[in-house]
Amino acid sequence: MKHCALIAVAACFVAAAAQADDLRVRGIGSYHVGGREVTLSGLPTQEISFTAGMAPVKVDPNGQFEAFQMYVQYVRLAEPKARYPLMMWHGGGLTGVTWETKPDGKPGWQSYFLSQGHDVYVSDAVERGRASWARYPEINPSPPFFRPKQEAWELFRIGPVGSWATKTAFPGTQFPTASFDQFMKQGVPRFATSDKEIQAAYDAYVQKACPCVIIVHSQGGNFAMTAALHAPDKVKAIIAVEPSGAPPSTTDVSTLKGVPHLFIWGDHLAEHPAWPKFQGAVAAYRETLAKAGVPADWVWLPERGITGNTHMLMMEGNSDQVAALIQNWMEQHALMK
Amino acid sequence: MKHCALIAVAACFVAAAAQADDLRVRGIGSYHVGGREVTLSGLPTQEISFTAGMAPVKVDPNGQFEAFQMYVQYVRLAEPKARYPLMMWHGGGLTGVTWETKPDGKPGWQSYFLSQGHDVYVSDAVERGRASWARYPEINPSPPFFRPKQEAWELFRIGPVGSWATKTAFPGTQFPTASFDQFMKQGVPRFATSDKEIQAAYDAYVQKACPCVIIVHSQGGNFAMTAALHAPDKVKAIIAVEPSGAPPSTTDVSTLKGVPHLFIWGDHLAEHPAWPKFQGAVAAYRETLAKAGVPADWVWLPERGITGNTHMLMMEGNSDQVAALIQNWMEQHALMK
Repeated sequence: MKHCALIAVAACFVAAAAQADDLRVRGIGSYHVGGREVTLSGLPTQEISFTAGMAPVKVDPNGQFEAFQMYVQYVRLAEPKARYPLMMWHGGGLTGVTWETKPDGKPGWQSYFLSQGHDVYVSDAVERGRASWARYPEINPSPPFFRPKQEAWELFRIGPVGSWATKTAFPGTQFPTASFDQFMKQGVPRFATSDKEIQAAYDAYVQKACPCVIIVHSQGGNFAMTAALHAPDKVKAIIAVEPSGAPPSTTDVSTLKGVPHLFIWGDHLAEHPAWPKFQGAVAAYRETLAKAGVPADWVWLPERGITGNTHMLMMEGNSDQVAALIQNWMEQHALMK
Repeated sequence: MKHCALIAVAACFVAAAAQADDLRVRGIGSYHVGGREVTLSGLPTQEISFTAGMAPVKVDPNGQFEAFQMYVQYVRLAEPKARYPLMMWHGGGLTGVTWETKPDGKPGWQSYFLSQGHDVYVSDAVERGRASWARYPEINPSPPFFRPKQEAWELFRIGPVGSWATKTAFPGTQFPTASFDQFMKQGVPRFATSDKEIQAAYDAYVQKACPCVIIVHSQGGNFAMTAALHAPDKVKAIIAVEPSGAPPSTTDVSTLKGVPHLFIWGDHLAEHPAWPKFQGAVAAYRETLAKAGVPADWVWLPERGITGNTHMLMMEGNSDQVAALIQNWMEQHALMK
């Protein structure tokens, strides 16, 4: 009791310095998972000047390399309120940075879900960001595609098709258009020939780090839904934010009965020719889930009066409002303690 | 007083769950800094299948891109004990992951210095990791070099030159050799033609985020020492861990009088032909600093009885011991509150 009284004094002092939104963190760390050794041979010796003006040195590009691993970074709380860690998987041509601070400098979903009591894991898929990438054409058959600003502006529905020339956004857009260039700095080249390796690394990640809940964006959607099919005992829920694809609607999803799915969509989907197609494939898979008795909720934000969201809705003006909707869904599905 | 009593009750409960090494964190976030817009034109349209089996789509690789930015991630404490944030800059062919969890899964220097009360900033230099990289040869003139395992094993002095074939490490090495492949998964391709852009982004980072103290490794050494010359009012100290280069010894360093430098070296430097050369250039710069009255300490770990460290001494068996030496040096130089 006296011990508690002593702590009480300290608590009064600490309370003065602490802020309500400080996090008590048990560990911050990272690892690479998946991938394999690849051997290259028969390549000619190269001459490289590693520093401008320095005499070139001979280097041998042959030998053993690690390839097709992915990168995972976690923040674990001292006292998580969620039953499972929350994995955040990014979309194509992007990295885990999607979930961090927003391009306008405000806190993103990593911070939001930490503050709600989730251990948060943010990853970079194979060939992107800190996952590194493999030499082409020797290991990866083809070169990557670098997304031009115009494609991002229009495909991500910041403005209508054809609006890039004048940079005219949709009226009432939630995207922080003044920070569009800052967003484009987050982009990374995209390889198109390694879906199998990306999935394999994600599956290895699930085996290592789950049980877990996955929030996934865009290109990642198919990988996450497939990961749930591969490990229905490990993946406890899927929250798919504008997934650009899904497993075939003919898939046997009977093992997923205990794995609720939530699909979330922004505004202006009909105004770019790609999105109705993408959404249609996902809708077909969702129907398969629903018929098999898998909880599969479908939220089209404008139908709830939430308008102006682009494809990048985790970094927009109302991102906390959308995150709160997800948090509420997780509470309803008993994913919080 | 009653309010304090109420807090006291909570404190007794919290004390039961809290661990001594929990961190109270005020914010975790990230941003990109530096870089510029680049325009590509005249490139032919490409056909890409973005998913295996999917019909190829026509994509236009021309347009505007962001290039030459770098990536910064920070963890800010509720009550830092250090006077300045601690920036951790990595070496060549690597990313900020260098400073995170060690390849054997144990906490690395990011965790160590957080636990000592530093706000810690970990970055990826231009063209590496989450900084992304620029198309070549159109933006970056030359392709990157992928470091083979043999080069890392021998150049980083895990084993002597010629020891890769049998993977025989130096006797008593501190490197976690069982986790060597895990370490190699951290590697990223290295471009050799963009020192100017790397420096420019680091200088922009210093202007944005400092005053600060910089811990830097290997290739980063020259960038950090140059950044201090460019902003002697912002960079409060340089801790260079096995820097592979330094500014010319003829540099006017008179503005650095208030910027102490610490140089730290591991074991077996004389047993690889590159290291005496690298170290010689740094020793010459250190002499220039010392003559100008800049505190410039030189720690060769084996001379202090600390043996077996390779080039990657922040991820080795005794990494906390080496970190403690740095922490002690920072205390001596009044860099803690």
